[in-house]
Amino acid sequence: MANSNRSDSHNNSSKKQTIDTLIHARWIIPVVPEKRVYENCSLAIDNGTIRAILPSLEARNRFDAREEHQLHNQLLIPGLVNTHNHAAMSLLRGFADDRPLMTWLEKHIWPTEKQWVGPEFVADGTRLAMAEMLRSGTTTFSDQYFFPEATAAAAREAGMRAQIAFPIIDFPNNWSRNGADAIEKGLALRDDYRSHSRIGLAFAPHAPYTVGDETLRKIAIYADELGMAVQMHLHETAAEVEKAIAETGIRPTQRLHDLGLLSPQMLCVHMTAVDDSDIALLQKTGTHIAHCPRSNLKLASGFTPIARLLEAGINVSIGTDGAASNNGLDMLTETNTAALLAKAVSGQADAVPAHQALAMATINGARALGIDDVTGSLEVGKAADLCAIDLSELEQQPLHDPLSQLIYTANGHNVRNVWVAGKLLLKDRGLMTLNEEEVRQRAGVWRDRIAGRSS
Amino acid sequence: MANSNRSDSHNNSSKKQTIDTLIHARWIIPVVPEKRVYENCSLAIDNGTIRAILPSLEARNRFDAREEHQLHNQLLIPGLVNTHNHAAMSLLRGFADDRPLMTWLEKHIWPTEKQWVGPEFVADGTRLAMAEMLRSGTTTFSDQYFFPEATAAAAREAGMRAQIAFPIIDFPNNWSRNGADAIEKGLALRDDYRSHSRIGLAFAPHAPYTVGDETLRKIAIYADELGMAVQMHLHETAAEVEKAIAETGIRPTQRLHDLGLLSPQMLCVHMTAVDDSDIALLQKTGTHIAHCPRSNLKLASGFTPIARLLEAGINVSIGTDGAASNNGLDMLTETNTAALLAKAVSGQADAVPAHQALAMATINGARALGIDDVTGSLEVGKAADLCAIDLSELEQQPLHDPLSQLIYTANGHNVRNVWVAGKLLLKDRGLMTLNEEEVRQRAGVWRDRIAGRSS
Repeated sequence: MANSNRSDSHNNSSKKQTIDTLIHARWIIPVVPEKRVYENCSLAIDNGTIRAILPSLEARNRFDAREEHQLHNQLLIPGLVNTHNHAAMSLLRGFADDRPLMTWLEKHIWPTEKQWVGPEFVADGTRLAMAEMLRSGTTTFSDQYFFPEATAAAAREAGMRAQIAFPIIDFPNNWSRNGADAIEKGLALRDDYRSHSRIGLAFAPHAPYTVGDETLRKIAIYADELGMAVQMHLHETAAEVEKAIAETGIRPTQRLHDLGLLSPQMLCVHMTAVDDSDIALLQKTGTHIAHCPRSNLKLASGFTPIARLLEAGINVSIGTDGAASNNGLDMLTETNTAALLAKAVSGQADAVPAHQALAMATINGARALGIDDVTGSLEVGKAADLCAIDLSELEQQPLHDPLSQLIYTANGHNVRNVWVAGKLLLKDRGLMTLNEEEVRQRAGVWRDRIAGRSS
Repeated sequence: MANSNRSDSHNNSSKKQTIDTLIHARWIIPVVPEKRVYENCSLAIDNGTIRAILPSLEARNRFDAREEHQLHNQLLIPGLVNTHNHAAMSLLRGFADDRPLMTWLEKHIWPTEKQWVGPEFVADGTRLAMAEMLRSGTTTFSDQYFFPEATAAAAREAGMRAQIAFPIIDFPNNWSRNGADAIEKGLALRDDYRSHSRIGLAFAPHAPYTVGDETLRKIAIYADELGMAVQMHLHETAAEVEKAIAETGIRPTQRLHDLGLLSPQMLCVHMTAVDDSDIALLQKTGTHIAHCPRSNLKLASGFTPIARLLEAGINVSIGTDGAASNNGLDMLTETNTAALLAKAVSGQADAVPAHQALAMATINGARALGIDDVTGSLEVGKAADLCAIDLSELEQQPLHDPLSQLIYTANGHNVRNVWVAGKLLLKDRGLMTLNEEEVRQRAGVWRDRIAGRSS
């Protein structure tokens, strides 16, 4: 990246508007308006906010920028929005693959979490996850994990945008004694971040089978009163739905609706097993979906009918889930998988075309988290959350269509530069706010601890 | 990679055996024997052949190598075997995505091929494909495309191992007038390469709906007489199978069996729509399968039941298909997709574990092409076809299990070094036998031609 601090004077500089940053890119895809690809244009940033998108020649005449970036052969898009993650679980990446789901959870993941998960684990794991997310173009993530105060602090320090969805479970765990305790702790954390521009809090009742009606009713009331977002694992497998029907007589989606939880503030994660009644409820209530295709495949959870849900007008976003069941946090790979899988599941090769896949990974994600006034597209007035992808590698040639290369050919390795709120967090693949060596070293410490090589 | 030409003398050099190459690797996974991971071992090569795999300390005492490579943090595996490709179609990568299958073929791919495909297109496209294949760890590919003489020449020059499966279609096309003409041209090409150690020829009748019984019978006889491999697109979609039953009264697999084509020399490509009778026939005859999951997803072709086929003892290999329907040739990504998809399709999270996925991408591929005496595993006496993957990146941390990272976390970008028959073709991601700039420039020329910007 050619990056210069402007000190040269111009004859007509008096007429120019001084701003923080100008980014000149070979291509810009703003996502809104849809299907638009700008060539040889520039994006002007001041005070962390997008001020203009205009032809580069015009931009140089109109603005005097304190910092300029020339992105040769790079495509600038909105920063990617990962709507479902358990960031700290990156420390358990590849720790116990290829097990049946319940064996994996009961014999490996849960006992390991019980033994090791605390603030230090969460801080180290979240930093590792953020390093990977930034290196693959994600600027915003929603996170659901224990010790959310550690996640929030790590995201604040690293400069990322985050929705901290604090976990609510009716049973005791390393972080909370019960549902009421979790809600209390989560709301206290919300107070700490009330005035923060990048960190928001959300309720994350874990799943219909771990949270009872009383707690869910309380969450619905709080969410409504405080205008807070809610996210919940829902219909992850057909077995979960069948078991719930056997126990409660109704489908979990109906139960949540009866408890007042389905609304535009609600994000349902997974939804592999949906029928017409579920779709009608989600549609009617404006409830969002977080689709996690790679986790659903790896854990053999099922196939979410994305094309059908999108056709019903339901807002579908994309999440990676935790790295323990993926095994990475690369949103471009996740989006590629979502697009390919949607075609096969619907039986239509033209289902979920590239521009729709990109929308799922950006503006739909921002909507799902309730922050589409701030991020998710390159529009004047929104935060400068940006991701620049290099399309010059051999694997991208010939370049018939930059949008196609982005969705069907690129992956996180092609991401070169990332900004959040106008601040450069990844520069030519180098992390600007995280110490790569320290992150790597801490991952090694946890590997040894978990393997019992030391403690 | 630390790479030194040894010129230092040792006191005990007289006791040592002089060989061409010693490669010291952090990890070696030989694939055969299964599930084995060697740490801090070395691979000894002489005359292009693997001479030994042994602990690095011992290797340095026993051998004096003209060339040594120290692969820090790298995992050495057999070179990947891509059993189905249309390499030259890389020039049509991303050219017409998101169309229904028949629109894509009839309105975009076929007219463009008719206009442009000739020896120059195939040579340039194959070089682009080989550059991508080498940069992502593939050492052997089977290719089915027009002007196979151009493909063969390009592979010979680049030093790759290739099975040139010359296309046989009963209708006139840019390369051949009819089935008989294609067979004649293909067998002449076979004569040219009869004594070549890396290039083999195979029959590629295109599909049951483009090749009639007479031509297929002829191919069966030749294949048997000459001991040649055959590969054919088969059961790519359920619609194809239904149409065939309506027209012929039998399933295409049964028809091929009746014509004498199913045997251990036969590789069936795709097989998304299989029933018990198909599985029984494939099993009984020892016929192989090339599974192309990303193409099957993108073209909405269907889901091949890999776990079930493997359980029936059928040899399943992996192919990328052409880059026009993928949109890349990265065998690690393809293998990852195959493993994840197999779990979801079978409903078993422990289906196709990592070691089985790696076998599909290596030894099963070599078997499918009839060259498992030469390649597909790291065994003494086999060719030194090798791929080294860097596991030091942040995205690979913490490293609980190198095999898991290889299949579930790595992709082509992590490949650093590749050897074919002991010759280094990719060194620290640099191509040794292909001119990267020229390959890129030719791709640009074809992009402009196809877009009508020039001719």
